[in-house]
Amino acid sequence: MNTHQHDGSPQNGGQLPSLGFVGVGRMGANMARRLKDCGFPIAAVFDANAAAAQTLAAELGSVAADDLKTVTALADVIITVVSDDRAMKKIFTGGLLKRAKGKLFINCATVTPAIHVWVEQKCAAKDAQSLEACMASSITQARQGTLYLMCGGKPETFERARPVLEKLGENPRYIGAAGQAAQVKALVNMVMNANTAALAEGLGLGAALGLDLAMLREVFSQTGARSGVLATDGEDMQNRDHACFFSAAHAAKDSGIALKLAKQQGLNLPLATATKKQYDRMVKTGLGELDKSGIAELTFKDRQGNPA
Amino acid sequence: MNTHQHDGSPQNGGQLPSLGFVGVGRMGANMARRLKDCGFPIAAVFDANAAAAQTLAAELGSVAADDLKTVTALADVIITVVSDDRAMKKIFTGGLLKRAKGKLFINCATVTPAIHVWVEQKCAAKDAQSLEACMASSITQARQGTLYLMCGGKPETFERARPVLEKLGENPRYIGAAGQAAQVKALVNMVMNANTAALAEGLGLGAALGLDLAMLREVFSQTGARSGVLATDGEDMQNRDHACFFSAAHAAKDSGIALKLAKQQGLNLPLATATKKQYDRMVKTGLGELDKSGIAELTFKDRQGNPA
Repeated sequence: MNTHQHDGSPQNGGQLPSLGFVGVGRMGANMARRLKDCGFPIAAVFDANAAAAQTLAAELGSVAADDLKTVTALADVIITVVSDDRAMKKIFTGGLLKRAKGKLFINCATVTPAIHVWVEQKCAAKDAQSLEACMASSITQARQGTLYLMCGGKPETFERARPVLEKLGENPRYIGAAGQAAQVKALVNMVMNANTAALAEGLGLGAALGLDLAMLREVFSQTGARSGVLATDGEDMQNRDHACFFSAAHAAKDSGIALKLAKQQGLNLPLATATKKQYDRMVKTGLGELDKSGIAELTFKDRQGNPA
Repeated sequence: MNTHQHDGSPQNGGQLPSLGFVGVGRMGANMARRLKDCGFPIAAVFDANAAAAQTLAAELGSVAADDLKTVTALADVIITVVSDDRAMKKIFTGGLLKRAKGKLFINCATVTPAIHVWVEQKCAAKDAQSLEACMASSITQARQGTLYLMCGGKPETFERARPVLEKLGENPRYIGAAGQAAQVKALVNMVMNANTAALAEGLGLGAALGLDLAMLREVFSQTGARSGVLATDGEDMQNRDHACFFSAAHAAKDSGIALKLAKQQGLNLPLATATKKQYDRMVKTGLGELDKSGIAELTFKDRQGNPA
């Protein structure tokens, strides 16, 4: 049986816990690189795409696990970064909880809040701990260790995870019980996506009127139209640079999670609804893998989603 | 005939031009107070509400003009701050241009871009000058001289107006020809209103889910959900403090101006459309004179616009 120190180390205060990764797409791989740089042993990595796992394992001197139970066997702390609810259910019923006693699972995927509650229950039944750690940042931040992390679960689990979390982002934020961080994350992305869709409309109409968009963006930044997405996406919208940090398909998914919560509460949210329709339209017309800034393709005259 | 110096003075470089105000509601009155503090003589004030003009005239040691032509007769520079297109047409055909040769009109109302073009033509026909000076700020900024001013008109008219403009806001911005500043202002408010409507949805859903809204606002401020309106309106939405700085009715009007421009360009803007519908709904249900933050009355459970 492992006996865990406050710093998450299974053996002693001086040794960092070994880590396993499940899901090594763009986000997961960069988080693994970052934690390796910080001195954590990356004991095993797993991905449904075996080639991706093998490449990363070779890069980090890790093991590309053949199955999920091997990840759990080799690591003290298992970080999961998978794509959706279904993938979360699949890994937690597909071997990840085999001999999981004493292990800590940190779950970073953006999934439905109820899934985090379910995962916590499954882990508790195996004497394992789980924490949701929702990320409100992107690939660059993952690599640099500057993610904004919103955490849900038991306070003592948050404390156990802290040494790892602090290397992923400076001030991991404890939100509340399991599922609440995912709720907050869904709200963050719902509002962010709506602001993005609105910005694309402002710049698209400005372009149609023949206004200088650099001037327009600067005026926006000085007035009540300023926003985080103006800073991160405004210039990309103007230049049609939609290299993907956060895809339109993900934006559609996250606004959908929030709208589902709203429906359960009997709330009608017309801005979020209009935003989801725009991102759904991108997915349907083959633009879903553009960055969320690609929504400007729908609001500028004569662009892909708005042909003349 | 007046001969104007570069600083806008009609007689000599040491003397400030005398000012007239047409429209002394909340904004106009505070701009007059500010310019009086800066040493400009306030020669005359006029308002359709005669009592408002008389009260302000008494306060500032000015004349409450009985008619528009008296304002033009007494002042070198006439600042108009009226409510809408119709009021602009009414004053510029109702005596304001009598004996207007050499006078400078600075028009601060948020009106349709085409009105500014029309006013400039009417003024030019009388050998007078006109400048649009759209304001992207509110009452407090008017009083303090920290308005953000977007100006449209001839560059030389902007230069003549500059000494007055610089006392209203530090860095008045020259945008382009008459009407273009109103276009930019319409875009600013369209995006601002959409961000406001989206924020109200995020906080309303957060409240319905039982989340701590102070925590939620702080998380928004650290993530992609951050915006100017989060800083100016977020706490007011939470506390239902809708004392009016920029009314819901004005928000509906300004989003409407932008949507009209979009329609002329053949652009469909679903976020702006959804936003206007929300502000229209406020007007229809008697909430139009609440501040724009009052849109949260529509998105929080059991509030005025969303009864149980």
